[in-house]
Amino acid sequence: MTTETRMTTETGERRRDVLAHLRTHRGHVIHVVDPFKIEVAEAVEKAGAVAEAGMPALLLASTDYEDFEAVMPAYVDAVRAVTGIPTILHFPPIPGRGFPVVEEADSVMLPALLGSDDPYYVWKSLLETYDLGNGSGSAQPLLSAALTFGRDDRSYARMGTRPVGQDEESVARYADCTRQFGFDLAYLYSRNERVNPRSCEIFRARMAPEQLLFVSGGVRSPEQVDAYLQAGADYVIFAGALETPDWRAALARLCSAQRLQRREPILL
Amino acid sequence: MTTETRMTTETGERRRDVLAHLRTHRGHVIHVVDPFKIEVAEAVEKAGAVAEAGMPALLLASTDYEDFEAVMPAYVDAVRAVTGIPTILHFPPIPGRGFPVVEEADSVMLPALLGSDDPYYVWKSLLETYDLGNGSGSAQPLLSAALTFGRDDRSYARMGTRPVGQDEESVARYADCTRQFGFDLAYLYSRNERVNPRSCEIFRARMAPEQLLFVSGGVRSPEQVDAYLQAGADYVIFAGALETPDWRAALARLCSAQRLQRREPILL
Repeated sequence: MTTETRMTTETGERRRDVLAHLRTHRGHVIHVVDPFKIEVAEAVEKAGAVAEAGMPALLLASTDYEDFEAVMPAYVDAVRAVTGIPTILHFPPIPGRGFPVVEEADSVMLPALLGSDDPYYVWKSLLETYDLGNGSGSAQPLLSAALTFGRDDRSYARMGTRPVGQDEESVARYADCTRQFGFDLAYLYSRNERVNPRSCEIFRARMAPEQLLFVSGGVRSPEQVDAYLQAGADYVIFAGALETPDWRAALARLCSAQRLQRREPILL
Repeated sequence: MTTETRMTTETGERRRDVLAHLRTHRGHVIHVVDPFKIEVAEAVEKAGAVAEAGMPALLLASTDYEDFEAVMPAYVDAVRAVTGIPTILHFPPIPGRGFPVVEEADSVMLPALLGSDDPYYVWKSLLETYDLGNGSGSAQPLLSAALTFGRDDRSYARMGTRPVGQDEESVARYADCTRQFGFDLAYLYSRNERVNPRSCEIFRARMAPEQLLFVSGGVRSPEQVDAYLQAGADYVIFAGALETPDWRAALARLCSAQRLQRREPILL
C-alpha cells in the first residue's frame, strides 16, 4: 500500500484516514480475523499473508467477546507489528457501553442495523458511543448501514435483526436510506444464506459514488468474489474461508479473482 | 404542575425528567417564544401567563440565532424565575457545533430531519452534539423525528428539507421510521400550509404508545387545536398566535379547546 493519507484529530495527533484509504483501494477482498477464536500467533501469520496478497485492510470482528479491553490492545499491536495495512474493529455494541474500541486500532466500524426491531441497535448505540467519547478517539469511526439477509436466529436473538427481503423494493428502500443518511458504507451480510449479487447492483446504483459497498457471508470461491465485484461491491469479506489448516491455498485461490477485477481508484 | 419526576445524571446532579413529565401531561397546547425576536420582559410575562393557563412546558425556539451562549443563559433564567414549568430549547444545529444548548434549560430538542437531503440535518448533527458532550449535560435531550409538510423554501435553503407529501403512504413510511428508531417524539410542522389532522391519526396509530406527537404550524383557532387533539396529537404548538398586542385574549381562546379535550395521563 502506497497511500498514506493522514488526518489530524482534535488532539492534534496524526492518524491514518482509513475511509480515504478504502475509497482509493476498491475492488478487493478483505479477511476477517476473530480475536476471540484465533490465537494471536496465527492472526499475526495471516495478517502478514493477506497484506502480502494485496488486501488493503484487515478486519477484526466477532459476534461475541469478553474482556475486550484486556485482550485487544496486545492483539492489535501484534498484528500491526507485521503489516502496515489498517486494522478495523467490527464488534457489536453493549447497552450502556456502546461499541468497544481500543486506541491501538486504526478504525472502528459503527454499524447501524437498519433492519433491527431494537432502536438501540438501529442507531442509539451510535449516539451512546459518541456520548461516551468513543467516536473521536484515535480509531476513526466508519458509519455503516448494516443489513442482514436471510433467516438468522443468532442475530435476531442478539440484536433484534429481522432479515431483509432480497426483492427489489425492500433492497431499494434500504439503499435509499443508506444514501440519505450519508453512511460511509453499506455492509450486506448473510450468515446462513447468500447475499444476492442483484442486491449489490441495487445498492451500487442507488448509493452515492463515495459510499463504499461491503458484502460478506459464506464467501468460499473466487467465482463468488468475482460475481460480487462485477455486481459493484467494493470489498468482498470472508472469515471462515481461511479458518482451515490449508488457509494459504484458500487465500491464493480467493485472491485470484480480485486481480482480474481490480478497478481504478475513484477520485473524489 | 404537581409532577416532579426527577432523574439522576452521570455527574450525580438531579434534574427534572422532562420526557416523563411530557408523557404524563398529554393533551395540551404549548407556546413557543422566540428569544431572538421577543424581548425578555415580554417573554417573562408570557411564561407566567401560559403556566397559569395550564401549559405543561415552554418552548424556546427560533430558526435563526446569534450569540446563543451570550443571550440564552440570562433569558432562560429570567423565564424560569417566574414559572416552574420546564423550558425546552428547539433550535437548528450548526455544522461543527451541533445543537446549541445552555445548562440553564431543562431540556433540548434534537430534531432528526428525516426528510432532509443533507445527512447532517438528517442525523449527523445529533452524533456531533453527543460527540461534543452536549447530549449528556444537565439539559435533557429529546430525540425528535421532525417532518415538514408543504412547500417551505426557507427550511429547504437552510437545512435541505424536502416537504413530505401528506398522502397515506408517505406519512405512514415516516411514522414507521419514527417508531423503528425509537424517537421520543414526532414533531409535525408546516410553515406555510397546515399539517393535515389525518397525518396525526396515521402517526398516532403507528407510533408506540410512549412516543409523543407534537403538531405545529399556523395554529390560530381553538377549532384547530381541537381537531389536532382529536386526531391524536399530544401537544399542539403555536408561536405566532401570541405575537400580537392582545395575546392574553388569544391565549384564553386557544386554551379553551384543551380543557375539553384533556385526556387522562397514559401510565407506562
